Amino acid sequence: MSQKLVGSCVVGQSGGPTAVINSSVYGVVKAALAAPEITHVYGASYGITGILNDRLYVLDQEDEAELELLMNTPSSELGSCRYKMKNPEEDDSDYRRILEIFKKYDIRYFFYIGGNDSMDTCMKVSKYFANSSWECRVIGVPKTIDNDLRITDHCPGYGSAIKYIANSVAEVKKDTLAYTMDTITVVEIMGRDAGWLTAGSALAGLIGCGPDLIYLPEVIFDEDAFIEDVKAVLAKTHNCFIAASEGLKYPDGSLVAATAGSRHDGFGHVQLGGLGAVLGAIAQKATGAKMRSIELSLLQRCAAHVASGVDVEEAVSVGEAAVTAAVAGVSDKMIGIACKRENGSYSYETILVPLDEVANRTKTFPRQWINEKGNGLTQDYIDYAAPLISGIWNSSAENGLPRYAHLKKIIAK
Amino acid sequence: MSQKLVGSCVVGQSGGPTAVINSSVYGVVKAALAAPEITHVYGASYGITGILNDRLYVLDQEDEAELELLMNTPSSELGSCRYKMKNPEEDDSDYRRILEIFKKYDIRYFFYIGGNDSMDTCMKVSKYFANSSWECRVIGVPKTIDNDLRITDHCPGYGSAIKYIANSVAEVKKDTLAYTMDTITVVEIMGRDAGWLTAGSALAGLIGCGPDLIYLPEVIFDEDAFIEDVKAVLAKTHNCFIAASEGLKYPDGSLVAATAGSRHDGFGHVQLGGLGAVLGAIAQKATGAKMRSIELSLLQRCAAHVASGVDVEEAVSVGEAAVTAAVAGVSDKMIGIACKRENGSYSYETILVPLDEVANRTKTFPRQWINEKGNGLTQDYIDYAAPLISGIWNSSAENGLPRYAHLKKIIAK
Repeated sequence: MSQKLVGSCVVGQSGGPTAVINSSVYGVVKAALAAPEITHVYGASYGITGILNDRLYVLDQEDEAELELLMNTPSSELGSCRYKMKNPEEDDSDYRRILEIFKKYDIRYFFYIGGNDSMDTCMKVSKYFANSSWECRVIGVPKTIDNDLRITDHCPGYGSAIKYIANSVAEVKKDTLAYTMDTITVVEIMGRDAGWLTAGSALAGLIGCGPDLIYLPEVIFDEDAFIEDVKAVLAKTHNCFIAASEGLKYPDGSLVAATAGSRHDGFGHVQLGGLGAVLGAIAQKATGAKMRSIELSLLQRCAAHVASGVDVEEAVSVGEAAVTAAVAGVSDKMIGIACKRENGSYSYETILVPLDEVANRTKTFPRQWINEKGNGLTQDYIDYAAPLISGIWNSSAENGLPRYAHLKKIIAK
Repeated sequence: MSQKLVGSCVVGQSGGPTAVINSSVYGVVKAALAAPEITHVYGASYGITGILNDRLYVLDQEDEAELELLMNTPSSELGSCRYKMKNPEEDDSDYRRILEIFKKYDIRYFFYIGGNDSMDTCMKVSKYFANSSWECRVIGVPKTIDNDLRITDHCPGYGSAIKYIANSVAEVKKDTLAYTMDTITVVEIMGRDAGWLTAGSALAGLIGCGPDLIYLPEVIFDEDAFIEDVKAVLAKTHNCFIAASEGLKYPDGSLVAATAGSRHDGFGHVQLGGLGAVLGAIAQKATGAKMRSIELSLLQRCAAHVASGVDVEEAVSVGEAAVTAAVAGVSDKMIGIACKRENGSYSYETILVPLDEVANRTKTFPRQWINEKGNGLTQDYIDYAAPLISGIWNSSAENGLPRYAHLKKIIAK
């Protein structure tokens, strides 16, 4: 292992918020405060842009009790960003600025919590410092409800998101069963290219309230087959309940939701929405049944009120593991999670993953976890996902609402 | 009190589902099973239509443990309906059919759980039996997320609905704060004519995450004032968070959501939807800020995973009180709730309300609970609503999903 490196650390959050990304901040801060090598603990305001703008929060001056409440607090408490770093060969001004700020605050440890795009930032910063004279250890901390980071078994944030999705799907399905009329219900779930979130709806089947049909973007959308599927369900029961990913595509690669318009985020990804209404209209036209579409929208990514206990615990662990590894000399890695699922028991441990194996790359949903007809999930997926939603997280909500963290957010000078 | 009346009872559910309407079924069944006067306990399959169609479930043959799980189970487990009874002077065939079925099963007690429309059914059946030779006691049991039944302090179902709304609003608001760009977020909440549900969003303010602006249908929508409100918020902060009722109306009485199309339910009420998108588009056009609209849709009426403990308890109580009253000789009443709110403590008791005081009538939201500008709530509303969302209901969700009741639903012969 490398020699002891004494200095400050900074932790930042990037990309879309989740129910537990603040739990990872808590894990980092808790471990950093306990590490003798780490002199000050800073938080980057709005991710990497907070470093570029010299806006760092002094997290070692926060109250311990408020820091603990980060485990109850959804979204990105330090603020997030979607900022794409240029390649340093093209333009190294951002990197020189980061170096300047790191020198100003004696920052020797950089922890960045996020998904694929954030791991790109993390990797670029890591490579830059590896070639600079300023020693700085860089560790990525995984988070994404999309669950599409490679190598890690799953990503913190995913378990709570699919717990919300499965509970909501079960409740809406129960709701649709209250009447006798023929009804088609479409629940639209996030997921541009991967069906990880939509797959989670299948967990509602564990309590007999799963969707009748589930469509993931990994299977090309076949409108005729879809109509046949809906008709087959309505021939057996008066309710047809569909869960579908916003990213469903026609054989020519165009989005089924495309008629509903498109917007773009900072990384050039199309922001979707409206798939549920489009799909419902197709089904309604073909069957004449009453139709309702429900878009889970932002509700599914920050539903801390139904956070998974396992997810909160793991999110804290990956934050702690990042600090432990960095202090021991590790850099240029992301913390991953490796799991054992045996006879209904579940255990996990943290692992180290090279940043260039995860940055800008995605893990696709295994085709063998989708049934042959492409309209449902297999037991293998259920066995994979069920442990991730377990455990009630007591979010101090006796009065009906949780207590969120109130940080002082003192700006470093 | 009247003389002892021995016979069977039937309980039915009507109107829109809620998170706790099954808790009221549980209350009725529990008390009925304990009452020596009641010989058999039936459940009407899909409300009054189950009686007309001679489809009754034999609830006294259900397992006690499964009946208890009704308290975890959202929606209407016996099935619901939206069936409008004709006036018996015009057409008494339905009433004669009900009499026939009641005689067949020796039914002397009729408990009907629902809102204003269901209390109309309840009242008509009650009046009919009052003038018939078949003694049958009829008691209404209140339920509606709309909270618009008169006289009762509030309606079971409302507390859990606004608990879901307040938690969701807080979470989405946290989500919108993660980025620095100017953003307008509109959360569209149910409520055709009354703002009860939308008002619940104000409770998120108790944890510092309330909407910046709240619009209820009790205040005529003024587009210019709305744009000024949004601009004023964006001048102070980069986020404008709006909660709005689907039923907002222009001065001429037309719906703001009207451009999004309309549908009708069986009672001739217009079914709304799309208000959020319309309102967001107005605000976006005026300010150029990024806009997102979220429709809580069906999610808000069956969110048993975040049910209020107080709501579940009261829903059971009104069911039990209905049986207790009927056995003691009462008929032609609805059970109501009377509350005491003093120095932060809250208590309630059940009361008797004449059916003709609640049937087909609605309680409007008090104008004095809306602020002068018509874009927020006053402390009086918060004091009224806060106790109704308190208490965590342990829904046996250790594995991430609750255990719902599985009734045998044996059809009576």
